[in-house]
Amino acid sequence: MSFNLLPAKNGEEPTMQFLLEVVDILTNYVKKTFDRSTKVLDFHHPHQLLEGIEGFNLELSDQPESLEQILVDCRDTLKYGVRTGHPRFFNQLSSGLDIIGLAGEWLTSTANTNMFTYEIAPVFVLMEQLTLKKMREMIGWPNGEGDGLFSPGGAISNMYSVMIARYKYFPEVKTKGMSAAPRLVLFTSEHSHYSIKKAGAALGFGTDNVILLSTDERGRVIPADLEAKILDAKQKGYVPLFVNATAGSTVYGAFDPISEIADICEKYNLWLHVDGAWGGGLLMSRKHRHKLNGIERANSVTWNPHKMMGVPLQCSAILVREKGILAGCNSMCAGYLFQPDKQYDVTYDTGDKAIQCGRHVDIFKFWLMWKAKGTAGFEQHIDKCLDLSQYLYNKIKNREGYEMVFDGVPQHTNVCFWYIPPSLRGMPDGDERREKLHRVAPKIKAMMMESGTTMVGYQPQGNKVNFFRMVVSNPSATQSDIDFLIDEIERLGHDL
Amino acid sequence: MSFNLLPAKNGEEPTMQFLLEVVDILTNYVKKTFDRSTKVLDFHHPHQLLEGIEGFNLELSDQPESLEQILVDCRDTLKYGVRTGHPRFFNQLSSGLDIIGLAGEWLTSTANTNMFTYEIAPVFVLMEQLTLKKMREMIGWPNGEGDGLFSPGGAISNMYSVMIARYKYFPEVKTKGMSAAPRLVLFTSEHSHYSIKKAGAALGFGTDNVILLSTDERGRVIPADLEAKILDAKQKGYVPLFVNATAGSTVYGAFDPISEIADICEKYNLWLHVDGAWGGGLLMSRKHRHKLNGIERANSVTWNPHKMMGVPLQCSAILVREKGILAGCNSMCAGYLFQPDKQYDVTYDTGDKAIQCGRHVDIFKFWLMWKAKGTAGFEQHIDKCLDLSQYLYNKIKNREGYEMVFDGVPQHTNVCFWYIPPSLRGMPDGDERREKLHRVAPKIKAMMMESGTTMVGYQPQGNKVNFFRMVVSNPSATQSDIDFLIDEIERLGHDL
Repeated sequence: MSFNLLPAKNGEEPTMQFLLEVVDILTNYVKKTFDRSTKVLDFHHPHQLLEGIEGFNLELSDQPESLEQILVDCRDTLKYGVRTGHPRFFNQLSSGLDIIGLAGEWLTSTANTNMFTYEIAPVFVLMEQLTLKKMREMIGWPNGEGDGLFSPGGAISNMYSVMIARYKYFPEVKTKGMSAAPRLVLFTSEHSHYSIKKAGAALGFGTDNVILLSTDERGRVIPADLEAKILDAKQKGYVPLFVNATAGSTVYGAFDPISEIADICEKYNLWLHVDGAWGGGLLMSRKHRHKLNGIERANSVTWNPHKMMGVPLQCSAILVREKGILAGCNSMCAGYLFQPDKQYDVTYDTGDKAIQCGRHVDIFKFWLMWKAKGTAGFEQHIDKCLDLSQYLYNKIKNREGYEMVFDGVPQHTNVCFWYIPPSLRGMPDGDERREKLHRVAPKIKAMMMESGTTMVGYQPQGNKVNFFRMVVSNPSATQSDIDFLIDEIERLGHDL
Repeated sequence: MSFNLLPAKNGEEPTMQFLLEVVDILTNYVKKTFDRSTKVLDFHHPHQLLEGIEGFNLELSDQPESLEQILVDCRDTLKYGVRTGHPRFFNQLSSGLDIIGLAGEWLTSTANTNMFTYEIAPVFVLMEQLTLKKMREMIGWPNGEGDGLFSPGGAISNMYSVMIARYKYFPEVKTKGMSAAPRLVLFTSEHSHYSIKKAGAALGFGTDNVILLSTDERGRVIPADLEAKILDAKQKGYVPLFVNATAGSTVYGAFDPISEIADICEKYNLWLHVDGAWGGGLLMSRKHRHKLNGIERANSVTWNPHKMMGVPLQCSAILVREKGILAGCNSMCAGYLFQPDKQYDVTYDTGDKAIQCGRHVDIFKFWLMWKAKGTAGFEQHIDKCLDLSQYLYNKIKNREGYEMVFDGVPQHTNVCFWYIPPSLRGMPDGDERREKLHRVAPKIKAMMMESGTTMVGYQPQGNKVNFFRMVVSNPSATQSDIDFLIDEIERLGHDL
């Protein structure tokens, strides 16, 4: 029973034994994760899992379970989950299972502390500070000066950028609310992440005041469209405030032309945010960082090491060029947490910069991975992933039964394509073909999940019917896994 | 070197060896954490850690470090950190190190997935759903109906409550922004957590429109003051929207009278939120849950199992009585993530209810602890912590050299007191004594941290000079640890 564990008297031995049994379950899982002969998942419908499969009972009760049962629960939880580190898991921008990062997370949970003060997280607070500085150097801000925080994901990081932009131009909104400002508008690409719109809704701008920018056929913002929409907004009496440029869009992997957007932001005195949640990692690569040229002119940047850099979830940074503005925007000076009369330099207390109070330690795993790989190791990883996606692109661009969603070598690892089953290959373009094609990817995906062999995402975009979006961020993926994916799509989709 | 680890070829053996060495470091740390002969912390100033102590170098570099060095880095990180699970760590509302919770976190990081869809977190999504239902049952909502999410901490949970209150009464704000609503005001106690004000600032209400309510000498909202301030706001032409009642305030541990506040909210048709981040855990105790009477009338509740219930950080829930309103408020229907044409029941995809996109798996450790302890185990833990704080209260209420900040048995585990060194004991009340007393707690705390023996918080409150706030949520604390704290305060403070 769990009451024999520490802090119980004589709990040391059962505790060590229990933890080692857990570790045995976990290390077995890790081994299998990298084994291509295991499935990516063992799919069950919600009602099946809720009914309880082979004794796996999710219901909570009043009375304790035995430690033996707890170990069985752990095994079952992993059994019916999804192996996101499997070499053939391509379903999400975050994938892979980095062993150093994993060790970092285990240590983080053992330390079980909170980022708000130096007092209770001295080492982690300093690691965060040094790592953020390093990231700002890579962005190209002079001497890596500026500010930043790790936040619980890219959506919150993007929300921060809108908040501080508003604080910069209309600081009185903090005390008086949005009624103290004119009608403010935000600009972001129609291909950008939905979190900009979410921020617009949450922060009181309203989604109608989030103006979507047109893109070229590759999903990149057309700068002239931005300028036209700024002028249009001004003409209507609205006040343009903020432009989000996406560095690596979610579906196409497109990089907006940051320099040209920065020119326009300067001309009209607007805040420039770069959402590099997905594409920020390319800053680590000498070969690919040119895709983010101009990012050094941004006022703020979102960058999620938990995506392209393979850091375990969650690890997202909001980086800000102007020092002090995060604190100015968010501080409430709570006396019980941020006492000015502590014995150490309290400028190291980060809590009052955040919209959170407690803040999870997301830095350690990233710091440890950086130590273990060096900047050079991240660069290799990124270059390898981009090479793999080019391999996929080259493989299918002229292959029978495939159509690319957009032409040309992908900017990021996103490869977007339709698989056309033989039954549709002769069919002329039109509503019937579109409707049929729209159903192909979901059908293949459903069969893929039932068979558990691989996972890849699909979605519609604008007027384009459902297509596959392949992404590579998984360090364990190889060309053979790409080949496997294509074989699997053809095996499952051939007779549709 | 880390490139010998999985997924490297033949990486299995080095990986297992490395992970077991990490586990060895962690289990040693766990053992020592519960050993009262070890220090709570080994304090160093930021500049000392930044300069590098005994070879512990925080700087990141281009080239990789060896795995041996990585293990040393892990050891050093723990060495210079704070043992928040130590029986004498009382510094924060979150403390303790639950072994089952720890195992749960290790598993969570090994699974390394994201809560947004059933697709990639089937088991965790269902665990969240069942656990939230159980929590809603404990709140007393009929059949546990309603909605909810785990969020990255109480501040974000509280922010959700303000967002959905606004959406309930002024749904057009989502699209049109705050200018579509009249001047809205929020009410919360002057003793409440600063996150309500932060939410007011962030969401575009403005902190001026967060009206602070007066409290009695125990820090509980005076209902008549709420009603008077509602009428005052209405008279000025403002529109009262939202009332936050705190169940367990941060400093005093006060429980606002929820039923009386609910009467007023009903009368004026206001949203009632209960911030039970700290006090929500008392719902698990038959002896103490009466302190939250009326919570079943709330529209939303924040409840952080990572505080009073000893769940590892982070674990915070926002619970909502009305089903569907979270999704209504936050959904943006991103096609690439929430495809309606999946093969399973997509109502299980939770992502579009959240302001986040990716969302960390915070449920598993909590679910596993609930399995291992049962509801009964949480009840025992809570009753024990409240007993311990009453032990402390009884010990010092009439002890020479102590003054209580407020009279009477604490409602929660918070015991607030001044230690009066002998040099101040004869001194008449007045500015000089106040100034001197204000400096006592910081001085004792600084010495405590330098000696590393125990940790407890202090702060001023209103016109009260710095006092100690003792809280007990640590399952490993016993009466002897309470005695130790008092001895230590007297040892360090005697000659001040």
